[in-house]
Amino acid sequence: MADKPKKDVKKVVLAYSGGLDTSIILKWLQTTYGCEVVTFTADLGQGEELEPARAKAVLLGIKPENIFIEDLREEFVRDYVFPMFRANTVYEGQYLLGTSIARPLIAKKQIEIAEQVGADAVCHGATGKGNDQVRFELSYYALKPDITIIAPWREWDLRSREQLIAFAEMHQIPIAKDKRGEAPFSVDANLLHASSEGKVLEDPSQEVPDYVYSRTDDPVTAPDKPTVITIDFEKGDPVAIDGKKMSPATLLKALNDLGKLNGIGRLDLVENRFVGMKSRGMYETPGGTILLAAHRGIESITLDRGAGHLKDELMPNYAEMIYNGFWFTPEREMLQAAIDKSQEHVTGRVTLKLYKGSAWVIGRESPYSLYDQDLVTFEEGAVAYDHRDAEGFIRLNALRLRTLGQRKKKRGL
Amino acid sequence: MADKPKKDVKKVVLAYSGGLDTSIILKWLQTTYGCEVVTFTADLGQGEELEPARAKAVLLGIKPENIFIEDLREEFVRDYVFPMFRANTVYEGQYLLGTSIARPLIAKKQIEIAEQVGADAVCHGATGKGNDQVRFELSYYALKPDITIIAPWREWDLRSREQLIAFAEMHQIPIAKDKRGEAPFSVDANLLHASSEGKVLEDPSQEVPDYVYSRTDDPVTAPDKPTVITIDFEKGDPVAIDGKKMSPATLLKALNDLGKLNGIGRLDLVENRFVGMKSRGMYETPGGTILLAAHRGIESITLDRGAGHLKDELMPNYAEMIYNGFWFTPEREMLQAAIDKSQEHVTGRVTLKLYKGSAWVIGRESPYSLYDQDLVTFEEGAVAYDHRDAEGFIRLNALRLRTLGQRKKKRGL
Amino acid sequence: MADKPKKDVKKVVLAYSGGLDTSIILKWLQTTYGCEVVTFTADLGQGEELEPARAKAVLLGIKPENIFIEDLREEFVRDYVFPMFRANTVYEGQYLLGTSIARPLIAKKQIEIAEQVGADAVCHGATGKGNDQVRFELSYYALKPDITIIAPWREWDLRSREQLIAFAEMHQIPIAKDKRGEAPFSVDANLLHASSEGKVLEDPSQEVPDYVYSRTDDPVTAPDKPTVITIDFEKGDPVAIDGKKMSPATLLKALNDLGKLNGIGRLDLVENRFVGMKSRGMYETPGGTILLAAHRGIESITLDRGAGHLKDELMPNYAEMIYNGFWFTPEREMLQAAIDKSQEHVTGRVTLKLYKGSAWVIGRESPYSLYDQDLVTFEEGAVAYDHRDAEGFIRLNALRLRTLGQRKKKRGL
Amino acid sequence: MADKPKKDVKKVVLAYSGGLDTSIILKWLQTTYGCEVVTFTADLGQGEELEPARAKAVLLGIKPENIFIEDLREEFVRDYVFPMFRANTVYEGQYLLGTSIARPLIAKKQIEIAEQVGADAVCHGATGKGNDQVRFELSYYALKPDITIIAPWREWDLRSREQLIAFAEMHQIPIAKDKRGEAPFSVDANLLHASSEGKVLEDPSQEVPDYVYSRTDDPVTAPDKPTVITIDFEKGDPVAIDGKKMSPATLLKALNDLGKLNGIGRLDLVENRFVGMKSRGMYETPGGTILLAAHRGIESITLDRGAGHLKDELMPNYAEMIYNGFWFTPEREMLQAAIDKSQEHVTGRVTLKLYKGSAWVIGRESPYSLYDQDLVTFEEGAVAYDHRDAEGFIRLNALRLRTLGQRKKKRGL
Repeated sequence: MADKPKKDVKKVVLAYSGGLDTSIILKWLQTTYGCEVVTFTADLGQGEELEPARAKAVLLGIKPENIFIEDLREEFVRDYVFPMFRANTVYEGQYLLGTSIARPLIAKKQIEIAEQVGADAVCHGATGKGNDQVRFELSYYALKPDITIIAPWREWDLRSREQLIAFAEMHQIPIAKDKRGEAPFSVDANLLHASSEGKVLEDPSQEVPDYVYSRTDDPVTAPDKPTVITIDFEKGDPVAIDGKKMSPATLLKALNDLGKLNGIGRLDLVENRFVGMKSRGMYETPGGTILLAAHRGIESITLDRGAGHLKDELMPNYAEMIYNGFWFTPEREMLQAAIDKSQEHVTGRVTLKLYKGSAWVIGRESPYSLYDQDLVTFEEGAVAYDHRDAEGFIRLNALRLRTLGQRKKKRGL
Repeated sequence: MADKPKKDVKKVVLAYSGGLDTSIILKWLQTTYGCEVVTFTADLGQGEELEPARAKAVLLGIKPENIFIEDLREEFVRDYVFPMFRANTVYEGQYLLGTSIARPLIAKKQIEIAEQVGADAVCHGATGKGNDQVRFELSYYALKPDITIIAPWREWDLRSREQLIAFAEMHQIPIAKDKRGEAPFSVDANLLHASSEGKVLEDPSQEVPDYVYSRTDDPVTAPDKPTVITIDFEKGDPVAIDGKKMSPATLLKALNDLGKLNGIGRLDLVENRFVGMKSRGMYETPGGTILLAAHRGIESITLDRGAGHLKDELMPNYAEMIYNGFWFTPEREMLQAAIDKSQEHVTGRVTLKLYKGSAWVIGRESPYSLYDQDLVTFEEGAVAYDHRDAEGFIRLNALRLRTLGQRKKKRGL
Repeated sequence: MADKPKKDVKKVVLAYSGGLDTSIILKWLQTTYGCEVVTFTADLGQGEELEPARAKAVLLGIKPENIFIEDLREEFVRDYVFPMFRANTVYEGQYLLGTSIARPLIAKKQIEIAEQVGADAVCHGATGKGNDQVRFELSYYALKPDITIIAPWREWDLRSREQLIAFAEMHQIPIAKDKRGEAPFSVDANLLHASSEGKVLEDPSQEVPDYVYSRTDDPVTAPDKPTVITIDFEKGDPVAIDGKKMSPATLLKALNDLGKLNGIGRLDLVENRFVGMKSRGMYETPGGTILLAAHRGIESITLDRGAGHLKDELMPNYAEMIYNGFWFTPEREMLQAAIDKSQEHVTGRVTLKLYKGSAWVIGRESPYSLYDQDLVTFEEGAVAYDHRDAEGFIRLNALRLRTLGQRKKKRGL
Repeated sequence: MADKPKKDVKKVVLAYSGGLDTSIILKWLQTTYGCEVVTFTADLGQGEELEPARAKAVLLGIKPENIFIEDLREEFVRDYVFPMFRANTVYEGQYLLGTSIARPLIAKKQIEIAEQVGADAVCHGATGKGNDQVRFELSYYALKPDITIIAPWREWDLRSREQLIAFAEMHQIPIAKDKRGEAPFSVDANLLHASSEGKVLEDPSQEVPDYVYSRTDDPVTAPDKPTVITIDFEKGDPVAIDGKKMSPATLLKALNDLGKLNGIGRLDLVENRFVGMKSRGMYETPGGTILLAAHRGIESITLDRGAGHLKDELMPNYAEMIYNGFWFTPEREMLQAAIDKSQEHVTGRVTLKLYKGSAWVIGRESPYSLYDQDLVTFEEGAVAYDHRDAEGFIRLNALRLRTLGQRKKKRGL
């Protein structure tokens, strides 16, 4: 409570959820920094009402003109989630990056508001041991290099849940009953996924308890009959489910519902954080898991091998950039340019079967199909593929290997 | 039938399954090339008896000393399948390379026999439109650069099923009743997988018919209760199931049984062949699918981030080498050296839940765990991770981005 | 001479230099294929007059409307050479790809003419053992998949220089005196480079004889005083020398002159051909060698590290695509999109010293410099770099290594 | 001077050069930390006597048993420089990493001494703005995760040359006359290179002044006659010059002399530091520059294309690891395993011409040559390469491109 401000700040834009923790941060900013606080609350599909956040901000003394609330769901899915899915992006072979991909957008909005209201600082509620602080702050710095960043969890002296609660009580911050004790795990959620980590999840040898799951039904209790759907793609992005056109966020929401019902998208993972340690998390990405399968499905008939293999080679690096928080960087934009270039004809329809935890592609078709039988006929009455070509193809591919073999023999290797 | 031999050959080693097609090839070699035929029949776990092949070879006039039959299952799994799984290898994001990985071993054995019996040629039964001809022949050439290769499907004039049957009848080759007509799809099988392609599978918009599956039960009819197992790894390879030590082939067989029961490992895929066209295949890799999940699981706690990310970056290239048939090459051996180096401490136990098509890792533990909480404590009473370090870490990672941001501002970009 | 046409062709567009070899091909097409021949002669800066080619084509019976002559120098440099140099492209660490980069343009023009005149075939004069046949034909096929390709060197029965000369004489093709015997080496030239290979160059242990060099003066006899020049870049491409604006081809020509004078750009190389064997070549790329050094120089102050390192990682793959002839492919276009994206601010001036075989960058400046001292100051009176940040930066980068070290110690590894 | 020790330290191993700066550090450690100081002075070929360092350490109160002096030249070249050159390693396309590669070895020795004498800390003299602090400390932490690191330049209050000199005078540290003022640039040197940076080099638009060069003669005044030498390689490492076998350090020294004489190995570079900013340096790597050319030369005839291209693709990443200080990491060891695997037959002789700044390969020969004409003949009287193979090779490589072309046409793209 006797924290001294580390920097001189006049006005700060706080990423404010309306929850207890960011309310404590809000108050701490006022009391420690003595600066004007601007709150920014975004709807990224986390599944919570935003208006209570406004009421709470007012209650905590924020001027109405300093309260910003925005529905970012469409922008989030259209400009962040879908571009990432164009690359079939997974981190460490499995993780769909649901948390990582949301941070740059929140940071971007905070900086925009800071420019608008003339704030000289921004503040986030990420802890000092995780990746999110990095993602927020790299984005802040990239977009406004002279910004001051306040990271309360790295600065304050509040060392325990008890101290936090005491601080809240002292400053008359309302405390929901179930927030007094330590949560058995912490959650981050948006339209793409919910992630859970900490406490009950910390022993990676122990199964994730049932009560941790919130976005997916248990595969075992999911319907006994598969659900079959189609997804239509245009230039690499999904545009319709079962033939019904939808906006990006609406579509992802619909896939989430389908995925939830069929127990799809659970991932129990030990991953490597950018800050250097391993952590165990549980991710639920119902719609994203279906989308990844579907996107690979439509690419399988519309994307050329050269483009597809290059994408596969670039992907791990691209995923790492997003995971580590390097979204607003030249290298990410370079890879995005390459990836987007490849998606020009990734257009068509994929049929999937959803069943008890799995999403299987069972059919794909496209006016741009490179599989289409007719395509391989180039001349009237003639098929392009001649068996005899294979011999020359093999023999020239083998030439260097034969030379190596000859050396081995000659030199007795 | 009036085929003229393309090359001068005295003795040829034929990869002989005992089936109708390779029996026709056997006879065709005798009649067209007029050369001595040596048959090689291998057990790679395809699920067929080998002794009937011997009987049939004798029947077709092969001298007993020219009949080679070998059980390669352990060598196949130990020296080909497991090394490949150390890299978490998938082709085009999904295919576990069950066919590709078997070809180099068969080719190697043929060449060894050729050296032993003084044969000047080898022969395989792969068609002229697929990848297998490439895989066989690149391996032949790499191991014995002066070998002559006979690829009947690229050479003969037998243009239809009818002609093949006629040829068989003329040469008194026994024909099973169900082999007279054209098969609705063709199958390749070994201990790692069964693949199906052709005919009924050729329209990629149509679901794979139920009767095509042979190695996996239908997930929908699979047990309603999950099966939980453990797999123990040593240096990257699985060595025990539920604590019971097994040889490589025995272990893979046991995983196959578990996978089959739970409907695990089906893959309906449109892939890009090395010879240039797209093809649609259905793969069943029950044990391999479980193994991939388990291997990623044990790596997640025992492999350092630097090693893990490097492996992920190298993998697509490594997979392409195997798919394209470049197993016996310096570049594959280079990558293998890197991959094997990484597996020194990939030792421990993974717990998995198998259920209706899915294999989920639910726990992992290891004496070499890098996750172990105690490990991150370096000094007595002190934890290595200091929140304050994060600020410097972020600020230096951001430095170049801030410089870029400053340029943008200064130049009005 | 009794060659039978391999395909049915009505009209063919021949890449025609006007030299003896392509004149023989012209006649051979007429006599063997009995088809109408359209000649295409391009100026890519090879240093030969084009009008004699027209006269010769007329002499050999080509109708005036079937003779196409085009000056492609600007297009060649602007759309092929410069884009390639944006990537600092070298094949196998050294080769500037002077021959490779010209082939796609010639092929493209041939196809355009074929479309225009309604030709059903194209023909080139590349031999059957080199890379150029591949580069021509991959481009032909990519741009017009139903085109028929005639590759005389792979088809005809002319097996020796004598037979070629005899054929020429029989068909009254004029033969320059010095073309009767076999050349001691063969040359390919354009505005970017001259390459020499064959005969006297075939023993890679022997130094290239002096008389092989044509585009560069001997460094030993080059001026004893260095030449200092500046090159200005805009968005990654050179636009001026010593402050004087020039068109792409004019500029490259001027750099060639400067390079020639100072003995710059010789390369004696054993390289790996796409068709499988090693070959020894000697390349002279005077202007290109200067340009590569200069481009790296301007990038060094204008390109961010993330972009620069990504470019370096992508380059070998990009170079291989060009060398192998895959210019008109989705994967090359993807990489080009990434590379071009990186060049937006690669603008500024580089000073170079040219001296007896070397081109050294001795200065670089740019309005977009990321080096500029002022840039690293972000706040009034404050410098962005704080020494104390380094500690946190190092400690978090070291965290995983400390964990590994701890494991080693704990396990006695 | 009133610095407070940041950590509790009993005994520290200092990387001690014997120069003024590390003498000041030595004293500062004694006075600030009040701990026992152990000095470690290594000969890495920097060109200075070591015994004066011993005398000075004694003078400054170090106990004889706490003074460690070691000649590391052979170990440095054999175990660090040569392995790095096997990869043809250059950072950002040009820099031969002379400073970077020395740091891990010094760090390793310090840690070994710390273990031996029971020290709990190590100390280096690198500044807080450069890469070397990172390289030292990552190595320290990797090799002994519980070590305490003292980085005086990040800790003390000595803010100017004047304060340093005052501190030295107060503690009776001998000060050479020319060390009183600020040096016009700073130098780091070892057997591989000398690097210069700072002050007079800080403006990247200005040419490096002549007096900065110390390891190379001016190319303009270098001999007017080329020097021709041969270098013999065994398994990727150089073993003899002009047929004379030499130890690693002796050989590199001899190459340095040859390079110096001919003005070879100067590099004026703006590079990207790991800590985030650009810096301008001047490097002199005479022997290394010759070695790089020679190694590429011997690889050009002994290394297969597959291995060579893979090496080229891996190199930028490998170079970055070394530059950033990640030598003792699993990922560097993985790449080293791959690289070393490739060098098994990189054995033979290269002839080079050295002349006024350039080192040109003019010949190469090897008993393991893959170029050897005879090798490409596989059968008696027959050459392996058949022109007709090229057609099939091209046609199958073109197949996917033709399919793409057909799609374009069909869809009017």
